[in-house]
Amino acid sequence: MELLDKLNWRYAAKAMNGDKVSQEKIDRIIEAVSLAPTSSGLQPFELIVITNQEIKEKIRPISWNQSVVTDCSHLLVFAAWDTYTADRINKMFDLTNTIRGFKNEGWENYRQMLLNSYPQKDAEENFNHAAKQAYIAFSQAIAAAAFEGVDSTPLEGFDANALDEILGLRAKGLRSCVMLPLGYRDTENDWLVNLTKVRKSKEDLVTLID
Amino acid sequence: MELLDKLNWRYAAKAMNGDKVSQEKIDRIIEAVSLAPTSSGLQPFELIVITNQEIKEKIRPISWNQSVVTDCSHLLVFAAWDTYTADRINKMFDLTNTIRGFKNEGWENYRQMLLNSYPQKDAEENFNHAAKQAYIAFSQAIAAAAFEGVDSTPLEGFDANALDEILGLRAKGLRSCVMLPLGYRDTENDWLVNLTKVRKSKEDLVTLID
Repeated sequence: MELLDKLNWRYAAKAMNGDKVSQEKIDRIIEAVSLAPTSSGLQPFELIVITNQEIKEKIRPISWNQSVVTDCSHLLVFAAWDTYTADRINKMFDLTNTIRGFKNEGWENYRQMLLNSYPQKDAEENFNHAAKQAYIAFSQAIAAAAFEGVDSTPLEGFDANALDEILGLRAKGLRSCVMLPLGYRDTENDWLVNLTKVRKSKEDLVTLID
Repeated sequence: MELLDKLNWRYAAKAMNGDKVSQEKIDRIIEAVSLAPTSSGLQPFELIVITNQEIKEKIRPISWNQSVVTDCSHLLVFAAWDTYTADRINKMFDLTNTIRGFKNEGWENYRQMLLNSYPQKDAEENFNHAAKQAYIAFSQAIAAAAFEGVDSTPLEGFDANALDEILGLRAKGLRSCVMLPLGYRDTENDWLVNLTKVRKSKEDLVTLID
């Protein structure tokens, strides 16, 4: 199928050529991020889209000096909520009631269940849970970029505290989780571009219980 | 674009009608799981595919009694490595050398760096990292299912320890992370199917630094 062809074409670009990705493609990739499912629909993350070259240059040294950080077109940073608060939960439940135009007892009971659970939990546990939701969106961005013929580099190798500092994330109650530079592969300078994709065998990956 | 149309069509089915998903579609969804990027290419998870009705019925009560667990066609369980070990890391690096047909100094240095880092870390920290990689694959499965016109229900609401016990995962060094029932929506009995999709505004989701 067409999607699998695109996912096969995709690889983690190790060098990009500086070419710009069109706004239309960026908008569609962001739409995929927005459409990603999240636990209880809370969307407990924000997306920082960086095109500013000076900021990219500040981020590169705290990212193992990886060239894609500066040579990408758009640098996406997925930042998850540092914890779940009553305000954040209520905001999404209120938005749901506004958009759907009605209140529902089951839904309000569910709101109370979340209010009685998340905010009382350890912030680190909550952040870890929110980060997983950010990863769902991050992965949809990877698929959407591939579908658009846009290269991306899933990037966990950075100093998250330093990135939070550069972007002022902690003051907003956010913590960086993962980055996704978007751009176009530099086929002449990328050591990875022509190497065979490696995946474990289906026997090692999948167990069928039938 | 076609992918966005499919992602818009997707929702978390709350009731499924028991219809079977064809093997061809399941194979393509599994292929998307296999193609998902993971940190250092380690693919630190396994996929359990359950069609056995008795096992599904054992899982339903430890999953808030959600009907999709038994009424789905295929129940996917994403189970991450309980920790990173030298054996697991070496296996993937050896596989890479075998598939690509050569040894590379930079790659071998990278292997040593991982061997000197992951296995010494706390198992819980490693599991959390591996679980995030499983979420990347989980999300690609959601996108691939939508692309196939197959419904799915992202499902975190279950007792992970009980599921590990039912599936015998701990003995294999695995821990369940998240489930994805695949099947077809029961439009007459699903309270969610006709409700408007709710997403926060782009202003609340995205910050542009240009």
